[in-house]
Amino acid sequence: MEFLVRFESSPPADLSSEERDRLRASERARANELRAEGVLKRLWRVPGRRGVVGLWEADDATVLHDALASLPMFPWMDAVVEPLATHPQERQ
Amino acid sequence: MEFLVRFESSPPADLSSEERDRLRASERARANELRAEGVLKRLWRVPGRRGVVGLWEADDATVLHDALASLPMFPWMDAVVEPLATHPQERQ
Amino acid sequence: MEFLVRFESSPPADLSSEERDRLRASERARANELRAEGVLKRLWRVPGRRGVVGLWEADDATVLHDALASLPMFPWMDAVVEPLATHPQERQ
Amino acid sequence: MEFLVRFESSPPADLSSEERDRLRASERARANELRAEGVLKRLWRVPGRRGVVGLWEADDATVLHDALASLPMFPWMDAVVEPLATHPQERQ
Amino acid sequence: MEFLVRFESSPPADLSSEERDRLRASERARANELRAEGVLKRLWRVPGRRGVVGLWEADDATVLHDALASLPMFPWMDAVVEPLATHPQERQ
Amino acid sequence: MEFLVRFESSPPADLSSEERDRLRASERARANELRAEGVLKRLWRVPGRRGVVGLWEADDATVLHDALASLPMFPWMDAVVEPLATHPQERQ
Amino acid sequence: MEFLVRFESSPPADLSSEERDRLRASERARANELRAEGVLKRLWRVPGRRGVVGLWEADDATVLHDALASLPMFPWMDAVVEPLATHPQERQ
Amino acid sequence: MEFLVRFESSPPADLSSEERDRLRASERARANELRAEGVLKRLWRVPGRRGVVGLWEADDATVLHDALASLPMFPWMDAVVEPLATHPQERQ
Amino acid sequence: MEFLVRFESSPPADLSSEERDRLRASERARANELRAEGVLKRLWRVPGRRGVVGLWEADDATVLHDALASLPMFPWMDAVVEPLATHPQERQ
Amino acid sequence: MEFLVRFESSPPADLSSEERDRLRASERARANELRAEGVLKRLWRVPGRRGVVGLWEADDATVLHDALASLPMFPWMDAVVEPLATHPQERQ
Repeated sequence: MEFLVRFESSPPADLSSEERDRLRASERARANELRAEGVLKRLWRVPGRRGVVGLWEADDATVLHDALASLPMFPWMDAVVEPLATHPQERQ
Repeated sequence: MEFLVRFESSPPADLSSEERDRLRASERARANELRAEGVLKRLWRVPGRRGVVGLWEADDATVLHDALASLPMFPWMDAVVEPLATHPQERQ
Repeated sequence: MEFLVRFESSPPADLSSEERDRLRASERARANELRAEGVLKRLWRVPGRRGVVGLWEADDATVLHDALASLPMFPWMDAVVEPLATHPQERQ
Repeated sequence: MEFLVRFESSPPADLSSEERDRLRASERARANELRAEGVLKRLWRVPGRRGVVGLWEADDATVLHDALASLPMFPWMDAVVEPLATHPQERQ
Repeated sequence: MEFLVRFESSPPADLSSEERDRLRASERARANELRAEGVLKRLWRVPGRRGVVGLWEADDATVLHDALASLPMFPWMDAVVEPLATHPQERQ
Repeated sequence: MEFLVRFESSPPADLSSEERDRLRASERARANELRAEGVLKRLWRVPGRRGVVGLWEADDATVLHDALASLPMFPWMDAVVEPLATHPQERQ
Repeated sequence: MEFLVRFESSPPADLSSEERDRLRASERARANELRAEGVLKRLWRVPGRRGVVGLWEADDATVLHDALASLPMFPWMDAVVEPLATHPQERQ
Repeated sequence: MEFLVRFESSPPADLSSEERDRLRASERARANELRAEGVLKRLWRVPGRRGVVGLWEADDATVLHDALASLPMFPWMDAVVEPLATHPQERQ
Repeated sequence: MEFLVRFESSPPADLSSEERDRLRASERARANELRAEGVLKRLWRVPGRRGVVGLWEADDATVLHDALASLPMFPWMDAVVEPLATHPQERQ
Repeated sequence: MEFLVRFESSPPADLSSEERDRLRASERARANELRAEGVLKRLWRVPGRRGVVGLWEADDATVLHDALASLPMFPWMDAVVEPLATHPQERQ
């Protein structure tokens, strides 16, 4: 099942720049693993913002939640999840 | 996977009272079938309104959509679907 | 450039069922042409609603508008268009 | 009487990790007591968020408030309570 | 248990003035019965609008719903119900 | 004239618990004076929240403002005031 | 006491142009009476809309409601009333 | 002074196609006059919608209102006007 | 041209009470100058809040912005400006 | 392709006044470069606020995002981007 997930992360302002770099690198690494597993299918930037919109695939909302919660930025993430149903034209 | 579904139906005002009764009866009949199949698990009234909140279970959003679209009131339904993830306390 | 387009169409309630069928068929036909041209890339149903979310690609918002306006349902469509920027992870 | 309660807790960012663990443990313990008493009937995670949706049963809103206020996280909780009426189909 | 109920009724515009008068009279009569029963405790007008805010008392949301649904205007009513908890200062 | 007033107070998080207790006690004392004067007529808790809804009576909005501003919590209060008009059924 | 009142009127589309002219003339006449009585103090147009914003003075919300309800357009009016308190700088 | 004006027009659905064409032609003609007078400076389409965003210049909101009200579509227009202040960087 | 301006100021919580008093005094002094110049015509308190609604007059939005920005509280002000058009009844 | 971009920047309150001045100067310098490149076409102040509305031109949303992200204030910017389509009247 596919989900449209929109999120924006606000890590604490008082992180040192090394901590911030390390956080970003581990976020990217985990995102790449989720891509490799087919869970994260596409990711777009919302222009002008730090937020992203992504197309995710997971068996259900619990599996999706666990994937999102595995991202190192999760504690500072504000996410909105929208379930998607397959359109009849795409079943052809 | 469970979903919280909130909807309110507004069949056309110019239905005759027989048509309206027949529509309601067939809606109730189809809802009962969905209950028997385990798709519709609980249904509450939003007090003071004609709307309902329901707890539904379906493999994914596509199966849920097909269940909702099988209700005779569907053409006049305004629905909002919220995906639910299992809470760790409930997995115990 | 990609766009996320969300729309819901409400053709007049007094169409005969033949007119409605013809409208739907021509809508589907035009959507298929737009897919063949690579303008309409993906389409999902919003579960529980008649609305859809789609991923579209067009040179700019003017070309996108012309594509949407070429759909036979356009006169009764309520659409919201969101521009998408490529995410650095996808440029790799 | 049943209530749908949606809440999200934001304990202060400067808690030590022991304080945080102790808070979470006591929150879980109190939630389990409320389950045992039949006040907390179901709990779901909102996917992608730290928030939860729960189905609660209490004699009235005052008793429900006292139950929610007995949770150790209450001082940092942002909750919305929705009263539910029994649906005629469920009275059968 | 007390509830704050806000509603506005829009009976069809094509009622004859006799039908409208009869509807209003029966609405008033039913409201008076609900007052006599202690279900409707106070009623205010929202200034500048046809809407009202009322303080209602009922065992639970199901009993409240049945009271509201017994009003002749109910089919054309748009209501919002808010549950109220007793404030500790009022328990004294 | 009656007003419906909804407010929620957020005193600074760094108050000592004595300061907080003293603030609450003086808030309660001032609220009791306003009750005795007939300005504060009823007070309810919004279930699940620290907020309250109250029914107030004052000659006009200026007198009401002065009463609200006399509460020790006023500097940290987020209030919404709604004017109420007498309903014809209550004039009888 | 002063009130800020914002409203927009939508008389039925099927009025003949004479009925519409007569309605507008009687609306203007009644508004002028309310000005003469000091109830309607100022009136502005919201640019680009048929709506207006007005400054009204009335003893309380009930008297204000009766003034608004005396306007011939009242049955088709969508109004929002905001109570105003005198600012200390204006009491000087 | 410049204004950002956003509007969408919904002429009645039962206009004949000649009436509709005539209305559109006169709308376009009046818009061209307003351009020639320097009142309407730029006009964009909101992609996917019949609505437009425009940059207008007028001495004040009253003159702007009169310009908008001179458009033949005005009776069916839903407009929102936003005042713009010159940015210091543009005064250079 | 007249404007309706609604604002609420939140100076930093850590100002000393002298700094706060000095800020308020200079705010009041500047407001009085703007009144004397005819820019600030009326000011009301929003009951229950620290916010105000004011009626301002300025040649255009740029002049209005400069007047608002000249208030000592401006750096902590959250303002919403609404342009007003003269109502035909007031031109008489 | 043109975009309407609305943003408001909130650099940290604890910057020294030199840091703030340096930030503003570099923001202005970068804005001027973007103007010279034809990316930033117009900029207006939202009256009464620190926010701005701008008309931007970029090949697509990715190029626009990179331009906005090149502004020194970007880390503290809250932006909303709206895509604009050319209006047929402007193609003439």
